[in-house]
Amino acid sequence: LGKVMKKASIISIGNELLSGQIVDTNAAYLSGRLLSIGIPVVSTYTIGDDVDSIVRTLKLASEDVDVVLATGGLGATDDDVTRQALAKFLGSKLQLQNEFLEKMQNEFDRRGRSMCERDKIQAYMPEGAKALENKLGIAPGIVAEYKGKLFFVLPGVPAEMKEMFESNFEFLIKNFELKIKNSSRQAIAVRKLKCFGASESAIADLVGDVMKRGRNPLINCTAEHGIITLHIVATAKDKNTAERMAEKDKKMLRKCLGEVVYGVGEQTLAEVVGEELARRGKTLTVAESCTGGALSKLITDVAGASRYFTHGWVAYSNQAKVNELDVSKDLIEKYGAVSEQAAKAMADGARKKAKTDFAIGITGIAGPSGGSEQKPVGVVYISVSADNYNEAKRFIFSGNRQLIQLRAALTGLNMLRLRLSRIKS
Amino acid sequence: LGKVMKKASIISIGNELLSGQIVDTNAAYLSGRLLSIGIPVVSTYTIGDDVDSIVRTLKLASEDVDVVLATGGLGATDDDVTRQALAKFLGSKLQLQNEFLEKMQNEFDRRGRSMCERDKIQAYMPEGAKALENKLGIAPGIVAEYKGKLFFVLPGVPAEMKEMFESNFEFLIKNFELKIKNSSRQAIAVRKLKCFGASESAIADLVGDVMKRGRNPLINCTAEHGIITLHIVATAKDKNTAERMAEKDKKMLRKCLGEVVYGVGEQTLAEVVGEELARRGKTLTVAESCTGGALSKLITDVAGASRYFTHGWVAYSNQAKVNELDVSKDLIEKYGAVSEQAAKAMADGARKKAKTDFAIGITGIAGPSGGSEQKPVGVVYISVSADNYNEAKRFIFSGNRQLIQLRAALTGLNMLRLRLSRIKS
Repeated sequence: LGKVMKKASIISIGNELLSGQIVDTNAAYLSGRLLSIGIPVVSTYTIGDDVDSIVRTLKLASEDVDVVLATGGLGATDDDVTRQALAKFLGSKLQLQNEFLEKMQNEFDRRGRSMCERDKIQAYMPEGAKALENKLGIAPGIVAEYKGKLFFVLPGVPAEMKEMFESNFEFLIKNFELKIKNSSRQAIAVRKLKCFGASESAIADLVGDVMKRGRNPLINCTAEHGIITLHIVATAKDKNTAERMAEKDKKMLRKCLGEVVYGVGEQTLAEVVGEELARRGKTLTVAESCTGGALSKLITDVAGASRYFTHGWVAYSNQAKVNELDVSKDLIEKYGAVSEQAAKAMADGARKKAKTDFAIGITGIAGPSGGSEQKPVGVVYISVSADNYNEAKRFIFSGNRQLIQLRAALTGLNMLRLRLSRIKS
Repeated sequence: LGKVMKKASIISIGNELLSGQIVDTNAAYLSGRLLSIGIPVVSTYTIGDDVDSIVRTLKLASEDVDVVLATGGLGATDDDVTRQALAKFLGSKLQLQNEFLEKMQNEFDRRGRSMCERDKIQAYMPEGAKALENKLGIAPGIVAEYKGKLFFVLPGVPAEMKEMFESNFEFLIKNFELKIKNSSRQAIAVRKLKCFGASESAIADLVGDVMKRGRNPLINCTAEHGIITLHIVATAKDKNTAERMAEKDKKMLRKCLGEVVYGVGEQTLAEVVGEELARRGKTLTVAESCTGGALSKLITDVAGASRYFTHGWVAYSNQAKVNELDVSKDLIEKYGAVSEQAAKAMADGARKKAKTDFAIGITGIAGPSGGSEQKPVGVVYISVSADNYNEAKRFIFSGNRQLIQLRAALTGLNMLRLRLSRIKS
């Protein structure tokens, strides 16, 4: 085992997770934190509050890994049975921990509540296991060692789980350091590149072989609403080497993808465009028709957007385009409200009225109805206007109404980003 | 097996899910939908993009259940191997489906993009399996039957997954109805009541004992961004009895909660308010400051919003409030741009300029900075204006910037909903 990388598995326990009432965010949180110390999670399981299921899954999950983290089912109500299941799995008995009973009693007193008989179950621990203090709630967590593997049981409430995990993070690392000091634990470094304006497969073609499985650094690709994220995960003997490898690949990919890369980490298009506007001391307004506020929303999702964003129009009706943005009636009659000409006139009108340096104009058909053969659902004209400059493009976006709106709004921001990159600051 | 209720299992596939980069929302969505037709999900698994893991988990997951749904790994990049793994699990070969290749080619043509060699993998299906059309993306899904069990493979992108699942929902139900007509499956009927304007615990207090565990119908409560959903799940021997029980509880809860209930099923506040405006032939405009487009976005998320929504202003700067909405400079100087008076003047100004029947005005501090002792982050003034009517209220919303914006926008819609209910149509 000495040479093998330490691995983890996560079990999320709770009927409410299986009925779709609650989205499990605990598993992703724990996975990210474990990866950050070089322990990859190889599988996660979600199961109901059932002793047999929990015992079976503890067995299954621990087969290939060194540490199992389970969340949920530690409370005082009848459906909480994780404590009992862990004892059964460990082949041990639950024992009352007077020290914890006392602590619980104090906590109930502090909150001015009385402790019921039912609550006392939370002070029981499997023989040989250790309790983990719950600073934000009542039920303590549990840590146990069994057949050379570590088992952590944490509360299901995300805030309590996080607090308990972070408080015991050092313990976890130390425990692993001790156990594996003679083994070659690997360090991991992660980078993210955010791309827009090319499809996932076009990006894969551009970067070539580096996305091959088994390569180190591993390069993965995820896509959402046209935003493509390239994940670079470098593994090495020590942190410095891993960081250097990840950084090297980041530079290589950036060079290879050029202006398709708009940012890094968790940056949004609106943040990147906003920062560039702020840096240059320039301002922006918008004239939206089919996106109906989606573009303004993206822009103002960024705290401090008021530095460069003064106001915007959601000019949904033709009347609004004419009255508010000075689009000429003749133009709308001649080319239609969904046209390159209208997009340009909307952006120009907004920019002049708002007295900003830049304006984005968007007009199109978000659907589901309203399309024609010439202008099908998904057709959107987007214009970027500045002093002595006005460029409009025609796009056809796929997806439902919300996706078409979002993709159009993002594309408008991207057009402005590219325009800014072409003019000197 | 005749007497056993049909059960399902879900497998979420993707390295990005195990590294904590992305929270899996697909499993919860599918669990909820399956439960609504009486198929409980008994376990979910998250695994990486690895053929052996996928094959092993398909075996494991299908052991105790009748249907397995897997999401993710259907794309065109090297890390997507779910298609290959399913073929291996089924003991069959991948075959090129010319029909799908042609459809893909058409979709690429329509988008004006060229198809790469790599993309073609998406037109391969395991022998004997059936393709499911992907209306929002490229990669088709897969449905296969194996050893009397059903396997669905859906895309990992949530929007594509949902669309594909909903389009094939009827097929899923029919397939099950056929298989289980001789068994005594329990029938389940589900109702949802959508509430706004009261907290989860206030609602729990209002409805009293009916939310007890073990009650039939089971009444559950979930909350998101201030929208509280009451789920009523009735179980009975036959569908009619279950439906009757659910309907009875729905009426009881409606009576008990009064105007806190704004709708049923999947209705949004914007839909309900929009329908009411359309029914009355009335129109609406908005003047948003701190919500930055969020309110317009909610309104125009509804297809057909142009029947009652003409246009709106995102009046972010003071200048915009003065120039575009005729808010007086004196008023802003005297009371501040974040004030009841400003909200009222913004709504009035927008309504007069847009010549609509109603207007909503919103001004506040979305944070994270900009708050003061008198006007802390989260303080928002919202006004509803109509002919001879203008009411404004002060709210303090909690949460981060995005949540404050969303809650304020929803509260504006809710104020209009309550106003409409108080005036005769």
